Amino acid sequence: MSDLVVVKVGGGAGVDVDAVCTDVAALVRAGTPVVLMHGTSAAVDSISARMGVEGRTLQSPTGHVSRYTDPETLDIYTMAANGLVNTTLVAKLQALGVNAVGLSGVDGKLLLAHRKEAVRAIDPKTGRQRIVRDDYTGKIEAVNAGLLRLLIGAGYTPVVAPLAIGLECERLNVDGDRAAAQIAAALGAGTLVILTNVPGLLANFPDESSLVRHIGRNGLDRAIELAGGRMKRKVLAAQEAIEGGARRVILADSRRAGPIGAALNGEGTVITHD
Amino acid sequence: MSDLVVVKVGGGAGVDVDAVCTDVAALVRAGTPVVLMHGTSAAVDSISARMGVEGRTLQSPTGHVSRYTDPETLDIYTMAANGLVNTTLVAKLQALGVNAVGLSGVDGKLLLAHRKEAVRAIDPKTGRQRIVRDDYTGKIEAVNAGLLRLLIGAGYTPVVAPLAIGLECERLNVDGDRAAAQIAAALGAGTLVILTNVPGLLANFPDESSLVRHIGRNGLDRAIELAGGRMKRKVLAAQEAIEGGARRVILADSRRAGPIGAALNGEGTVITHD
Repeated sequence: MSDLVVVKVGGGAGVDVDAVCTDVAALVRAGTPVVLMHGTSAAVDSISARMGVEGRTLQSPTGHVSRYTDPETLDIYTMAANGLVNTTLVAKLQALGVNAVGLSGVDGKLLLAHRKEAVRAIDPKTGRQRIVRDDYTGKIEAVNAGLLRLLIGAGYTPVVAPLAIGLECERLNVDGDRAAAQIAAALGAGTLVILTNVPGLLANFPDESSLVRHIGRNGLDRAIELAGGRMKRKVLAAQEAIEGGARRVILADSRRAGPIGAALNGEGTVITHD
Repeated sequence: MSDLVVVKVGGGAGVDVDAVCTDVAALVRAGTPVVLMHGTSAAVDSISARMGVEGRTLQSPTGHVSRYTDPETLDIYTMAANGLVNTTLVAKLQALGVNAVGLSGVDGKLLLAHRKEAVRAIDPKTGRQRIVRDDYTGKIEAVNAGLLRLLIGAGYTPVVAPLAIGLECERLNVDGDRAAAQIAAALGAGTLVILTNVPGLLANFPDESSLVRHIGRNGLDRAIELAGGRMKRKVLAAQEAIEGGARRVILADSRRAGPIGAALNGEGTVITHD
């Protein structure tokens, strides 16, 4: 599906969801099929706070920080991701004339993931390693591309929440950027647009004039070294998408009008096979 | 789809969801397509309580009581119905080998409903009528049967949350029994099974030996008079299903092992065209 565009929009508090939906609607009206993958972080945080549940993180020995998704947090994550955020996005797109259908990775085993039963984590108080056994986070192993093709072929626009199903059919929290990359790869998408709150990969973060405008496949390893913080995950996701069969990935700025249109015009960091 | 079975399972605290899922899996394994519609009441109540939001009801001048779904409650309803309850059911069915896909009525405009912008309600304190303008409850006007047929035809089992989309693309709370009836009618289902916490329609409630075993189409008006409380809504739903094109409706007991199998064997109140 070489004209397909997969878009990942983050779940942070400042994201202009209306601008993203407006652009998705313009693409769909023009005949371009779209899959929209969304995040859910701000909604999880606010629902957790309302419920009096403390948000906790896990830090791996290599320094990677992730949400500690114990069973209680997994329920809140499910309510937020596949309940409030997904349904609200689908309704917004419907209001713009897009026949959107919301899914999570649990539906039809759209995103099948592997859960580590024991995770090494650094205790923030003592600095010592401990083993965590109740973290429901997964790494995606397979995508049910057939379900997405079925819906797209019938004129629907899939909107996907970052929740996967595990090998024992448990619900799992998965990283939205990686999920979007796996979907783009499985569908052989023409373009994966990953929206973020910077203009793309910056050679000298946070100097926005140091934007890296193009990365070829051979430059990806160096780009991953160059990237810091959350951008490293996005460049890794871009690599997964390109190596899996997507033709182009664009890391682009969500903080502007027409964010997807601008990205497709090459504004951002464009990553290709060449 | 005359072999199709639509099942409605309530969202009350005492419902044995595992027994329902086991029966759905047996039907699907035997080659019978199933659509599962679920309720969400207990989950909405418990999430509301955790969030410190008071659950309120509206009483119509005719005595009908419903959940007061103001914007805040609508968000909680969305999290509960399309988030936690739907996703958990889909994961349970997947664990039993059923390729379930969760939807709400917002997805693909599966359930298009009309919202009354102003509702007359009796104030419980004063007994006086007042006008409520922020209740997001709807009456279903149309079903996107094509989306369900698309999924069923590809081997998926749709699991539907009781949320509809309004004419202005707003999310709406809809009654699950009526929604199941509309779906059964739109698909020309062979059977609609509405599970409840009594053995069926009782001529002398709560005397369970007074079970009405069969109602023909001509007996429905009398049955609606006979029914009290929540059962009245279920018989009204049965009438909608039968008049809309479903071949048979069974009001049956959910409080037993094999509840759907028993219903399909005729245990309960069987309502037919004859």
